[in-house]
Amino acid sequence: MIDANPSAKELAGEGAFIWLGKAREWERQTGKKAIHFEIGEPDFQTPQNIVEAAVKALHGGKTKYTPSNGIYELRADVAEFLGKKRGVKFDPDCVVIGPGAKPLINALFQTIIDHTKPNTALITPDPGYGPYIDNAKYYGAKIYRVPMEEKNDWRYDVKVLRDVVESVPAGMDKVLLTISPSNPTGGILKKEDWDVVEELAKKHDMLVVSDEIYDDFVFEGGHTSILSRDGMMERTVLIHGASKTWAMTGWRLGWGVFPKHLAPTVGKMMGNIASCTAEFTQYAGIEAVRGPQEEVAKMKAEYKARRDYCVKAFKDMGCYCSLPGGSFYAYPNIRKIMDARGFKSELDLCNALLQEKGVVCLPGPAFGPSGKDHIRLSLVSSMDDLKEGMKRIKEFAGF
Amino acid sequence: MIDANPSAKELAGEGAFIWLGKAREWERQTGKKAIHFEIGEPDFQTPQNIVEAAVKALHGGKTKYTPSNGIYELRADVAEFLGKKRGVKFDPDCVVIGPGAKPLINALFQTIIDHTKPNTALITPDPGYGPYIDNAKYYGAKIYRVPMEEKNDWRYDVKVLRDVVESVPAGMDKVLLTISPSNPTGGILKKEDWDVVEELAKKHDMLVVSDEIYDDFVFEGGHTSILSRDGMMERTVLIHGASKTWAMTGWRLGWGVFPKHLAPTVGKMMGNIASCTAEFTQYAGIEAVRGPQEEVAKMKAEYKARRDYCVKAFKDMGCYCSLPGGSFYAYPNIRKIMDARGFKSELDLCNALLQEKGVVCLPGPAFGPSGKDHIRLSLVSSMDDLKEGMKRIKEFAGF
Repeated sequence: MIDANPSAKELAGEGAFIWLGKAREWERQTGKKAIHFEIGEPDFQTPQNIVEAAVKALHGGKTKYTPSNGIYELRADVAEFLGKKRGVKFDPDCVVIGPGAKPLINALFQTIIDHTKPNTALITPDPGYGPYIDNAKYYGAKIYRVPMEEKNDWRYDVKVLRDVVESVPAGMDKVLLTISPSNPTGGILKKEDWDVVEELAKKHDMLVVSDEIYDDFVFEGGHTSILSRDGMMERTVLIHGASKTWAMTGWRLGWGVFPKHLAPTVGKMMGNIASCTAEFTQYAGIEAVRGPQEEVAKMKAEYKARRDYCVKAFKDMGCYCSLPGGSFYAYPNIRKIMDARGFKSELDLCNALLQEKGVVCLPGPAFGPSGKDHIRLSLVSSMDDLKEGMKRIKEFAGF
Repeated sequence: MIDANPSAKELAGEGAFIWLGKAREWERQTGKKAIHFEIGEPDFQTPQNIVEAAVKALHGGKTKYTPSNGIYELRADVAEFLGKKRGVKFDPDCVVIGPGAKPLINALFQTIIDHTKPNTALITPDPGYGPYIDNAKYYGAKIYRVPMEEKNDWRYDVKVLRDVVESVPAGMDKVLLTISPSNPTGGILKKEDWDVVEELAKKHDMLVVSDEIYDDFVFEGGHTSILSRDGMMERTVLIHGASKTWAMTGWRLGWGVFPKHLAPTVGKMMGNIASCTAEFTQYAGIEAVRGPQEEVAKMKAEYKARRDYCVKAFKDMGCYCSLPGGSFYAYPNIRKIMDARGFKSELDLCNALLQEKGVVCLPGPAFGPSGKDHIRLSLVSSMDDLKEGMKRIKEFAGF
């Protein structure tokens, strides 16, 4: 009987979803409620104006197919919304709408990697969000990791970045992935980092894939984007979407801005994968980008408060946690807890933390080898839950 | 600069979406309204109980991530809904929910075709729905077409089916695609066809991919499925979804039932492609399969009336049209019109029909070479539009 192919079987599955499953199983078995730090899903509700826009669209019969790259109105609004923030003018025809950012990542890699004779190098931050690596590898790209360190606040060591880029054989298609603010570390790239990214991209004719989905949650100073720089629009893919900014994870609505020469094929690929994105959801997206943004500001303030609490709580335990500049993650160094408790791996620690205390975190190395000695906390539980979770982690550590 | 890979650029794009685009352009230029027979999208509205279920879920905050294979409740309801009709018991864990049936087709082929060393033969009805071929080819499958003919009401000539299956080299993974009721012909497979499909599947250890998405629109007698037969569940993939039965195309909600050994990998692949399907949409799906089905019966009666009108109108012009046993398509033979008007191809005819009369049909060969001399009409316009469309086609033909 025909079986799944080996690469399909080997697909890791996204760590956060796997740990969500583990946590649900623990809850079922113990009858208790876990404290969830595992998944990057805001605990906030989608702002009411967006919900009502979807309801209005549903009642108005917006339940039909749309073009595979999305309805023009939403593409134009997204182009304006993202362009204003970056001080540039995006062409609506360069915007592709998808049922989430994940399908755009998938469509992008299927478009640029020739799986029949793969010759693509994905140069990826380590630690970094896994599905980029899973998707690129699945279609045959070779992965080059750029180790990042806590002592640099998870920004590039630009010498290391240069070395990795220059280690890629000439003749390979080079794709440089940046995630700022970063999942999993919350680190943000600064002007000096972007200077080097720009220089290397131009020198090596690289495509930059810039994941900026956490751009509305930058806590100090503003968001900076490689797309604000001259000559970068035609060599950069911007990955973004509604999930994080407006707490719309379960709506499945993402978008990307692609260089003009790639956008039509990515749109066609999206048609091949998914036909199109739900019509009423796209109308809700129009309300999201056009409507009032006060709720977003409130969420940001709350994420910042949680970040400050969490970082301090780890410091009080004697565990260093680089201050996340953005996103809603914390990525503390838990070496001291591992040593104190005698755990051989971060995975063992996370398993024991769930079993003993019902607190769910992700092992750092799930995001790459440089995540050694770390765990990721997604700060998407209420402040009360966060306090309770940190109290239990302290008990667990025995400090 | 990194470009799209050749196979991505060559992706055909789904004919119906391309013609929808052409029609919209014609409407823009002329300021007139076209008569749309091009896309397989019901003109009906989604039944109100389903819309209200989505509204309730939205108001209830069902806007979060779900497992990548779908929420258990919907999977269980779909298993029961599809199982009852086929007289079998499906395991909810064999059901995978996706944002449309198209992503399931994509996930299936990515799962079973090893694109690093493809060794899969897709044996496909000709004419047949294009995206199966586009997706299978993209991942490296070899396509074997089984020509079907009007004189057999677009059912198999079983000798031809046997010959094609036996022409596939031993050692290749064989996947037999069946689409009954058929898009584009409306033909339905009967007991004698399924007998041979079952025999060949077992003899050659084939995986049958059975697209039964039009199963609620079979006009005479009931729907028959290969899945009702002993020993076929473990070698059959059932592709289905909400789009056609409940007029939910633009919602993006599909599902498949997979053999037990494939379902977990397809679910994981769905996670890799799309994370998951919108949560509130899945709750609407529960209402669709559990709720009253009177609206479906009304739609079916209307499709039947349209079918009868359309087939007769073509016959009155002297153009044969095999009576579609199901679906909402008609696939008339328009050779006589081509000859009378001197068109070299079905494409030329369809282009001229749009330009001269604002009537949009798809050229038959868009569904495979056996579609020569035919066009596809999707009977998803009101009876008034259908009458007007047929009147214009008659004028166009000059008969």
